Amino acid sequence: MNILIIGGGGFIGQKLARRLAARATLRGQEISGLTLADIAAPDAPEAPFDIATTACDITDRTAIDSLMAPGFDAIFLLAAVVSSHAEAEFEDGMKVNLHGALNVLEAARLQGRAPVLVFTSSLAVFGGEVPDPIRDWTIPNPQTSYGTQKAIGELLVNDYSRRGFVDGRTLRLPTISVRPGKPNRAASSFMSSIIREPLSRQEAVCPVDPDFEHYYLSPRLCVENLIRGAEIEAADLGQSRTMIMPGQRLSIRQMIEAMTAVAGPEPAKLIRFEDDPAIRDIVSGWRFDYDPAKALALGLEADDSFEDNVRHYLQDDRPA
Amino acid sequence: MNILIIGGGGFIGQKLARRLAARATLRGQEISGLTLADIAAPDAPEAPFDIATTACDITDRTAIDSLMAPGFDAIFLLAAVVSSHAEAEFEDGMKVNLHGALNVLEAARLQGRAPVLVFTSSLAVFGGEVPDPIRDWTIPNPQTSYGTQKAIGELLVNDYSRRGFVDGRTLRLPTISVRPGKPNRAASSFMSSIIREPLSRQEAVCPVDPDFEHYYLSPRLCVENLIRGAEIEAADLGQSRTMIMPGQRLSIRQMIEAMTAVAGPEPAKLIRFEDDPAIRDIVSGWRFDYDPAKALALGLEADDSFEDNVRHYLQDDRPA
Repeated sequence: MNILIIGGGGFIGQKLARRLAARATLRGQEISGLTLADIAAPDAPEAPFDIATTACDITDRTAIDSLMAPGFDAIFLLAAVVSSHAEAEFEDGMKVNLHGALNVLEAARLQGRAPVLVFTSSLAVFGGEVPDPIRDWTIPNPQTSYGTQKAIGELLVNDYSRRGFVDGRTLRLPTISVRPGKPNRAASSFMSSIIREPLSRQEAVCPVDPDFEHYYLSPRLCVENLIRGAEIEAADLGQSRTMIMPGQRLSIRQMIEAMTAVAGPEPAKLIRFEDDPAIRDIVSGWRFDYDPAKALALGLEADDSFEDNVRHYLQDDRPA
Repeated sequence: MNILIIGGGGFIGQKLARRLAARATLRGQEISGLTLADIAAPDAPEAPFDIATTACDITDRTAIDSLMAPGFDAIFLLAAVVSSHAEAEFEDGMKVNLHGALNVLEAARLQGRAPVLVFTSSLAVFGGEVPDPIRDWTIPNPQTSYGTQKAIGELLVNDYSRRGFVDGRTLRLPTISVRPGKPNRAASSFMSSIIREPLSRQEAVCPVDPDFEHYYLSPRLCVENLIRGAEIEAADLGQSRTMIMPGQRLSIRQMIEAMTAVAGPEPAKLIRFEDDPAIRDIVSGWRFDYDPAKALALGLEADDSFEDNVRHYLQDDRPA
């Protein structure tokens, strides 16, 4: 079992690599090698098998062909230009998210090995005038270029799978919280920082009110679900390879209560509620009511409660 | 109002050109010119304005750039490799249906004129495990490469419109019946030939039983709906530019009864029912239960009854 992670330098790619190193198996087979590729060569974890790291530009078809030349049994395609970048720089998003995905799919098609391909999409594919709850058969009606490019990737993975060019599975990720690292300019940044910063005795600003609801998953369960996604038998996937990755619908208030239950009352006092109309306008268009029936039936899981998300962060990610 | 029809040599493109020539206006403005482009230079109808015809390969970006260089106010993008071709020749379908549509959209984006763009999609975008009836917010889950490529076009037209690069409208066409011409190898061919051939005193074979249901629209109403699609105000389209073009759900029996009501009892006697498992297998996967609410609200129409489809064929298309 020779595995490739494209986007192996990102925080999910790195966690996935460490988890694969710890498991040492995938789909019931021993892992013989793992290659991590990203726009800059990623870090490699310790592992009981060969690990290679390489810099590779997904927009360069020749580079993708040579990256994939060794032949892989399973490929995780995580690389993407994120939402705000794809909205600000239309051509970058099209190049990386659409043509980059096409480069990987075409290289796989012409190689003829039909590798397992786990593609990460996003709940950003949903939006506009569709009824709640959003189900597996709700139309992707994205209101961003990022969501559009991901929805196109979903369709391509389905068709390349139906034709036997890859054995694809597409997982639409919820908002990941608690995300490690520092705040960034993403509109969703506060959805991690209101937990992460207070747990490190730092102030955090919450730009929406405590009743604001959204749909969340911990990084740990996200990685478990990506692995589970790779392990599903093709025959169990039916006539679509796409599914909503399970998460939890939570209000800001519930998230803070969970932090208090795990870490005591002090962190919550470090959250300052400060209305930010620009952020509120963006995130109020996001959907929070999902029914991930297909993924649940196939064994993917959400965290039991947001207390788990907080505990996972403390165990896995809090800086020493 | 300078208009371009890409795919202007096809039977819908030709009918649309003749209808525009007869109307002489679109979106309340006088038509000043019409260009018909196709892989081979199309025929030009008589018209009270300038008509140009040209051969243009949609897969050639340079050719598309020069085709669009004069600047058009409205573009009808009808060109496509059809279902059976895209399934047999994967690369042809990707080149014409996906990259060809991208060529037109990119040329429009870089031109900066934001033309009205009417894109024809298909009910072939639907399939697989989705509940009936199929609504405007049902996921496109295509089970053919043609359907996949059309569903990708829908997403692109939506995003290019949202960003102001084009003013797009995507119409998902029902099966067109009564289609003029000769039988072809399409699985749907019999859905026209069981009416068309008997009306010309020729035998026709029906490969499914009289209870087989499907979703139909006459060529005449299809053209009227394409024009109406071009005339909808952008503000009325909401957060998706895509809609199901209205049709009628009919059984073979209902179609034959309609023919008899219009043309008497003789034609129906020329239909021979002869089970064809290969065709039955393909068409039994097609969906027939649609709720085209959005298009109906925007003024698009289905035929009143299949008797109209028969009458339109006799008036517009039956060979002399």
